[in-house]
Amino acid sequence: MISVREFQNMMHRIYFHRDSERGAEDTFKWLKEEVDELGEAMQNADKKALEDEFADVIAWLASLANVLAIDLESATLRKYDHHCPKCGSSPCQCPFRITKT
Amino acid sequence: MISVREFQNMMHRIYFHRDSERGAEDTFKWLKEEVDELGEAMQNADKKALEDEFADVIAWLASLANVLAIDLESATLRKYDHHCPKCGSSPCQCPFRITKT
Repeated sequence: MISVREFQNMMHRIYFHRDSERGAEDTFKWLKEEVDELGEAMQNADKKALEDEFADVIAWLASLANVLAIDLESATLRKYDHHCPKCGSSPCQCPFRITKT
Repeated sequence: MISVREFQNMMHRIYFHRDSERGAEDTFKWLKEEVDELGEAMQNADKKALEDEFADVIAWLASLANVLAIDLESATLRKYDHHCPKCGSSPCQCPFRITKT
């Protein structure tokens, strides 16, 4: 088991010297590329490859949070605290939307 | 404190009825939009808004993992287990790269 904070701290120990040198803008670009790779992996039947892409996205999200000095766990729990932040219910009772826009 | 698995389970309780109805492709599109919004929030000085966008990205990543029956915590710890998966070191000793491509 690992908490969101522990995972972010692990990413800091392994990568912060690189992430801080790269900076927020280029770390964000890398995150976007990993998200694109996750989308590509969804098209294939290789579950291990798909899992690796999920791992990469959360890893780069944590790296970006480190560069920007954001506490990912605190930020997440403030918004998602066991109910939908929009309707206040769990399960969510908001009108169903397929897409965001 | 919340573990990655507990967070994914929380997202399941709040949103799985909607996420499963929407399906993987449209949930992925929504994730991409949230990543774009995170990039926009990086351009502004509002830290609370930036934190909210980080929360949304990890929330939609967990939703997508739920739709695809991926255990985000197991997938993440298998790849990132306290050292860089490429060079095996912590801190990472890989050649520094600003961008992925």
